Amino acid sequence: MPLMTDALIIGAGPVGLFQAFQLGLQEIACQIVDALPHVGGQCVELYGEKPIYDLPGIPVCSGRELAERLQQQIAPFKVPLHLGQQVMSLAPTADGGWQLQTSSGQVFLARAVIIAAGVGAFVPRRVAIDGLSAFESSQIHYYQTDAIRLQGQRVIVMGGEDAALETALQLADSGHCASVTLLHRNSRFKAEAALEQALQQAVARGVITLKVGQPVGIETAAEGSRLVALQIATGDDSSETLAVDALLPRLGLSPKLGPIADWGLAMERKLLTVDPATQATALAGIHAVGDICHYPGKRKLLLCGFHEATLAAFALAAYLRPEQRQLLQYTTTSPRLHELLGVAGSSART
Amino acid sequence: MPLMTDALIIGAGPVGLFQAFQLGLQEIACQIVDALPHVGGQCVELYGEKPIYDLPGIPVCSGRELAERLQQQIAPFKVPLHLGQQVMSLAPTADGGWQLQTSSGQVFLARAVIIAAGVGAFVPRRVAIDGLSAFESSQIHYYQTDAIRLQGQRVIVMGGEDAALETALQLADSGHCASVTLLHRNSRFKAEAALEQALQQAVARGVITLKVGQPVGIETAAEGSRLVALQIATGDDSSETLAVDALLPRLGLSPKLGPIADWGLAMERKLLTVDPATQATALAGIHAVGDICHYPGKRKLLLCGFHEATLAAFALAAYLRPEQRQLLQYTTTSPRLHELLGVAGSSART
Repeated sequence: MPLMTDALIIGAGPVGLFQAFQLGLQEIACQIVDALPHVGGQCVELYGEKPIYDLPGIPVCSGRELAERLQQQIAPFKVPLHLGQQVMSLAPTADGGWQLQTSSGQVFLARAVIIAAGVGAFVPRRVAIDGLSAFESSQIHYYQTDAIRLQGQRVIVMGGEDAALETALQLADSGHCASVTLLHRNSRFKAEAALEQALQQAVARGVITLKVGQPVGIETAAEGSRLVALQIATGDDSSETLAVDALLPRLGLSPKLGPIADWGLAMERKLLTVDPATQATALAGIHAVGDICHYPGKRKLLLCGFHEATLAAFALAAYLRPEQRQLLQYTTTSPRLHELLGVAGSSART
Repeated sequence: MPLMTDALIIGAGPVGLFQAFQLGLQEIACQIVDALPHVGGQCVELYGEKPIYDLPGIPVCSGRELAERLQQQIAPFKVPLHLGQQVMSLAPTADGGWQLQTSSGQVFLARAVIIAAGVGAFVPRRVAIDGLSAFESSQIHYYQTDAIRLQGQRVIVMGGEDAALETALQLADSGHCASVTLLHRNSRFKAEAALEQALQQAVARGVITLKVGQPVGIETAAEGSRLVALQIATGDDSSETLAVDALLPRLGLSPKLGPIADWGLAMERKLLTVDPATQATALAGIHAVGDICHYPGKRKLLLCGFHEATLAAFALAAYLRPEQRQLLQYTTTSPRLHELLGVAGSSART
């Protein structure tokens, strides 16, 4: 079933979230899609715990805290979020709108689209070995970690950060797998101390095998239709072969511009060129805001993205309701905005 | 003694304050001048207690609270504030900078100027009676309320809000004046209950005379060199004459663009036209930000002013240090910005 909305926002980072707020003030219904399983985008993914000092009126807050504050701010508008899926295609519809489809197969029909995709969708970093990608739909699991579906299998988890250790520990604890091996390129981990400790205990108990090395090739069977082993370089020119039924790479997330580059929008050095007065691209009804857009003077700062989202919301109100005269209303004084925000009117004396 | 600075900011409203923050991050020294005796501009003057809902990451805060948060944010940069004085003149200097003089006589020599003057300087609302303005430098006191300097005088305070009541009560309490009359156009006051109560008590004690009426003319003596009385219309076509030595109008503040309009800057409907990429006016080194500036798409919102201040700071860094390559540094990660902000480095793991 396609979902219909006035505006679809691609990206649930801070700027995408604030875009929903500004559209809400303009009474434009919207929904948000993001490749990550959570809101906050790179702000949470790359600097979730790092302090941000340059947001006006917020002397300091972390990326994660900013995402929480923005979620609180857009709560009155009850914006539907579609997380863990990437927008794969964008095509015009006969009535002047846009049809979009995500990697989960969800179809949207939107009168307007706002691309707030930052540096791109955060997708799992791929393992670069010849021939491996052929098994992505069968034996390689970049996303799911459902132990029951790995029943009786010899599992290799790859990586040295929290996500890799968590995945290996979770599978080992489940007891469903025939074996769990954690493969990392060296013996140093970048993970929470508690996770490292749990890992050492699991290794001591024999439920996880630790392997240091770099995958360099694969072995297949059944005329290449089945992955059976990874060839591992273990240093000192030596190598070894690890039997595998399921490979779970957990090498972190890396931003990919992805299909956006193929939508026929004017781009310059991977950035979408926009009119700074409206944030409009050359395609009617498609606007871009935040780090993914470019115009003269553009700075890749959160504050600038928030400003752009504001201008885009005004421009979309004019685009979607051309017959209506546009007023600048203030949240301090407008009874209509107070109603939309679900707050009581001002308590000031005058 | 002229004060020298890299950049002089005209206006200590939220945008002027944030301008100082962004200049601080760019290591550009600055000072701020404002006509009001406090920071916060119209944000404090007009909606100090009213809630603002549309600042990103701040679900709600009052105008006064925003001004406090911004002062906290700029504290690391120790920006000199020059309050209660209006910039009256702006003239180019031989070395390509600018000389400015305030209503208090303070002279500044600045390499650059940023006009963040909002809707103009908040100046006391004038009493509009023919011939009265001739006495502004002698018997009419729009600013000072120093009782000692009014020793033995018959004083009329005008107005019905807090400031008028406070002034009248303060003068009556001092015992210095020959008489204190509070003149208001009707018998309703818009003041704190406690002030109204104190006023009623002072009237009962006979130290303040309350007069309801509208001044319509003046009487002078000594060949017009001295104001001796106000003619008051008291309703029902009746009138009365009030002897006066000193008139203290306290009719509220009203924004006036003032001398800025005479500086030869391109203006459109009382707004300064700027290049939105740099916020530059047509005069080298003079930028404008916030409600006073205009460019295509401009919205008079706090957030937009903050964005403009950011772009202006980058543009001024390029203007003042043309030899230096410009980098976009992030407050989350830059050790140099951490040093400037006086904060410890990030505590994140990576």
